[in-house]
Amino acid sequence: MEILSFFAVAEKYKAVFLDSYGVIKNHKGLIEGAQNTIDFLRSRDIAIRILTNDASRSQQQQAESFLKLGLKGIDTHEIVTSGMMAKQFLQQKILGGRIAYLGTENSAEYILQSGLEHVAIRDVQFDAIDDISAFVFLDDEGFDWNTDINKTVNLLRRRNIPVIVANSDKLYPVSRNDVSVATGGIAKLVENMLTKKFIHFGKPDTQMFMYAYDELNLSGSFSKQEILMVGDNLNTDILGGNKFGLKTTLVLSGNTSAADAELQINASGIIPDYICASIVS
Amino acid sequence: MEILSFFAVAEKYKAVFLDSYGVIKNHKGLIEGAQNTIDFLRSRDIAIRILTNDASRSQQQQAESFLKLGLKGIDTHEIVTSGMMAKQFLQQKILGGRIAYLGTENSAEYILQSGLEHVAIRDVQFDAIDDISAFVFLDDEGFDWNTDINKTVNLLRRRNIPVIVANSDKLYPVSRNDVSVATGGIAKLVENMLTKKFIHFGKPDTQMFMYAYDELNLSGSFSKQEILMVGDNLNTDILGGNKFGLKTTLVLSGNTSAADAELQINASGIIPDYICASIVS
Amino acid sequence: MEILSFFAVAEKYKAVFLDSYGVIKNHKGLIEGAQNTIDFLRSRDIAIRILTNDASRSQQQQAESFLKLGLKGIDTHEIVTSGMMAKQFLQQKILGGRIAYLGTENSAEYILQSGLEHVAIRDVQFDAIDDISAFVFLDDEGFDWNTDINKTVNLLRRRNIPVIVANSDKLYPVSRNDVSVATGGIAKLVENMLTKKFIHFGKPDTQMFMYAYDELNLSGSFSKQEILMVGDNLNTDILGGNKFGLKTTLVLSGNTSAADAELQINASGIIPDYICASIVS
Amino acid sequence: MEILSFFAVAEKYKAVFLDSYGVIKNHKGLIEGAQNTIDFLRSRDIAIRILTNDASRSQQQQAESFLKLGLKGIDTHEIVTSGMMAKQFLQQKILGGRIAYLGTENSAEYILQSGLEHVAIRDVQFDAIDDISAFVFLDDEGFDWNTDINKTVNLLRRRNIPVIVANSDKLYPVSRNDVSVATGGIAKLVENMLTKKFIHFGKPDTQMFMYAYDELNLSGSFSKQEILMVGDNLNTDILGGNKFGLKTTLVLSGNTSAADAELQINASGIIPDYICASIVS
Repeated sequence: MEILSFFAVAEKYKAVFLDSYGVIKNHKGLIEGAQNTIDFLRSRDIAIRILTNDASRSQQQQAESFLKLGLKGIDTHEIVTSGMMAKQFLQQKILGGRIAYLGTENSAEYILQSGLEHVAIRDVQFDAIDDISAFVFLDDEGFDWNTDINKTVNLLRRRNIPVIVANSDKLYPVSRNDVSVATGGIAKLVENMLTKKFIHFGKPDTQMFMYAYDELNLSGSFSKQEILMVGDNLNTDILGGNKFGLKTTLVLSGNTSAADAELQINASGIIPDYICASIVS
Repeated sequence: MEILSFFAVAEKYKAVFLDSYGVIKNHKGLIEGAQNTIDFLRSRDIAIRILTNDASRSQQQQAESFLKLGLKGIDTHEIVTSGMMAKQFLQQKILGGRIAYLGTENSAEYILQSGLEHVAIRDVQFDAIDDISAFVFLDDEGFDWNTDINKTVNLLRRRNIPVIVANSDKLYPVSRNDVSVATGGIAKLVENMLTKKFIHFGKPDTQMFMYAYDELNLSGSFSKQEILMVGDNLNTDILGGNKFGLKTTLVLSGNTSAADAELQINASGIIPDYICASIVS
Repeated sequence: MEILSFFAVAEKYKAVFLDSYGVIKNHKGLIEGAQNTIDFLRSRDIAIRILTNDASRSQQQQAESFLKLGLKGIDTHEIVTSGMMAKQFLQQKILGGRIAYLGTENSAEYILQSGLEHVAIRDVQFDAIDDISAFVFLDDEGFDWNTDINKTVNLLRRRNIPVIVANSDKLYPVSRNDVSVATGGIAKLVENMLTKKFIHFGKPDTQMFMYAYDELNLSGSFSKQEILMVGDNLNTDILGGNKFGLKTTLVLSGNTSAADAELQINASGIIPDYICASIVS
Repeated sequence: MEILSFFAVAEKYKAVFLDSYGVIKNHKGLIEGAQNTIDFLRSRDIAIRILTNDASRSQQQQAESFLKLGLKGIDTHEIVTSGMMAKQFLQQKILGGRIAYLGTENSAEYILQSGLEHVAIRDVQFDAIDDISAFVFLDDEGFDWNTDINKTVNLLRRRNIPVIVANSDKLYPVSRNDVSVATGGIAKLVENMLTKKFIHFGKPDTQMFMYAYDELNLSGSFSKQEILMVGDNLNTDILGGNKFGLKTTLVLSGNTSAADAELQINASGIIPDYICASIVS
């Protein structure tokens, strides 16, 4: 397992797609040196897009959040989130009724702003649910798990409607050692109760890659071979990038440690084209 | 699909094993006529055992609970619970340290009374966990799901110890229409986070059948062909009974409705020997 | 569950994506009236694309096969197969070495024509496998299941290489009553042996939809809301179409019978926008 | 991870349950020194039972097979196979009709000798299947996989009957490097095609442990704490032994190598009480 310099790898490509958590930032904030890497890519005219499984913040809020962390020069249009994919789906497919959701009011506001009324699961009255036309798992926060997960199960037993999972990640890191159950994990619990499968958004599905690829080609001509996907997670970033036909780099600064990388690659059969310690070296 | 009289079926057997919820009682209390059926079985000298996936109450508390509901004549030794199986396992296999748990203090007290100290997950201090020797999923009540499920995940990332699920049911009915996520459902969520498999107790596993069978044969001689398992759930009662070699009766008074029975039997391939409307007709 | 006229539904759209098996043809040949439907769509200037999970024939061979069945006027470029997606992936990602495969020589020739040598699993010598750079599940025919499935398992235990499944369907109909295990089913068996996940191509994944959508927009301007996906299978055609943001029609002329449709929709939570008896009425 | 002497561990117990493949024998024959270990256990009056997931040979044939390999002194009654469990189930539950099967004629003869007629799947005529009352997966040999697996799928689509898997192992070793798909793997493929679950026999299910335990106690008094289960496989031998309440020893002479043991124990959460290099040291 050869560990390469990220700069040496990246400079061979016309565009770089970066995962956010574990690549640019971590639980302590910005990864030290990330600004330098972004500046390097800019200086070589390498296009940048950030692809993140996140539905808690809008594209605009994500950009502001990078700025607050101290990372300059990330433009709103360079950010692609799983929440954007879910929002697009809802706009195209859900044309009437009310949308019920599990998550924070903030995430509901930006994702569900499609002219339709939305209602938190805690405010749903079971004697008035005939107009509920879809359900969305938005976030792991903003509700009481003891009551609202059961209420979700029982709503979905009564109403057979499209169910959307705006971020399919099952967990996320909250400190060096600890994780928290994420939206995708809670959705999986409810799927398991109902023995149904919901509509999931986020890497490794190819939608976010396709969106970034199409948007990138509005301002130039990029073939898939000229784009490098960079991520810390074999099952989302690398699998999705491989499947979409991009070159892929696994970085060891997040979810996959140097000690585990070879083992996990062998066990999963998901093989990155390159391995780098991080994007800063 | 022929619906038979329960009395006509049962009187051909020397012993009857009954599931509790959906067979003897439901969310409203005792199923009307259950006392009459028990009296009929007693009058024919047919032995009775009640096999229930439940870890929230001790054998003694279960017996008292039937009496409170108005069902007379159920003896403590006639009750077999999944919690008893978990308790037995802990006594045989966990011989030192502290046992951490998710559930109510009451369930912890009766299951974990093995001379070992037990500690609710909310009271676990992560700087003093080296002596925690096992973890038990006891119940879906008695804790804060928002914080304690995540804390369980993180404890089990730090300590590789036996994890026991004292009731593998994933949901239970709380009213005619509604269900609640049960211990087994929460355990499944945590298994999914950790990609591990825990040690599950309860039907359809054969332990409870074996326990009831052995205990029954202390006071007589019963072959498997002389015992009838009665339950409302194909995946637990009927599958387990079939696999253990008993004759099985599906009753339509609980989880499996008359409308769904044939469909579910065909879809699952789990085939009861008899079908009855309930135990009271 | 309202059954609509396909003509009445289709004429509201600018383009129609059709699944092949169960929609245009079945085990007996062309579905009677299919030519009339194609002619109707042409007369209204509604664009047509055929999206089929098939890796046994090239795009050209597929077009010829429709002609042989008696269906006139399907152009080669109007056909999109899962095999084309697999071929594209191999061209973009596998740049050296030999590609081993399970399937017919014909399917191997058209999919693997990327300048790289290919070798049937039966001809692989285990003392010379260091140059094998990928493995492809092409087809369920063309090999001895008793020996070649085991040989595949053992090759993939020795070599950690990308594994591609060119058609993820697990079974296909061979007569009114009977089915046959398909490539995806055999791949799943091998995944299960190795506890790995391979890279699968075919609906419900969005790649084929994206390919058809991009290709369609080379010759016009079509939004997703102007395209109707038509299929007989909830889990591939309808799920994939829904997820990509198209309108979807379930037809009852193939895999999903009129008797089962409502039940399967409720059980799966995959909800088509329309239901039609077939494309011919 | 401390590696202990098997002799030092075993002498503390009144009975030892041994897995066969990977413990007593391997692909080359008897494990060198196995006779010495058996003689040691006999000299200390430690009872021996051999628990093997195998349905290809009767108890008698198993005993003869040990003798042919050069292992003396294993009595027929000391052998417990998953095939015996399947046979017992069939005798108790299938009382009429014909039993169809996939496997060798030899395995069919000993397992299906219940007075009922049996028929190999290749000889089943689909116009005369109304009297087929059960289906058994016996073995991975004795049939043409290309035709007979599909025929099995189609029989089980026509007839909703109990389906028994006489050995749930999904693979078995055939040389130092190579494995072969076993009965349980083929059954899993068919389950996957039908989306049904069959009735599986073999470790880790507790039936074989229960059978051995009951039989052992006919000739003495053994508590579970006085019995040691010895196996090379965490998911069958150790999980099953732990769950039944026995003490367990993982040996590193078979399926689990010394290099992998700690990793697999951590990944699975299945924790043996002891680890020994083999039974001979």
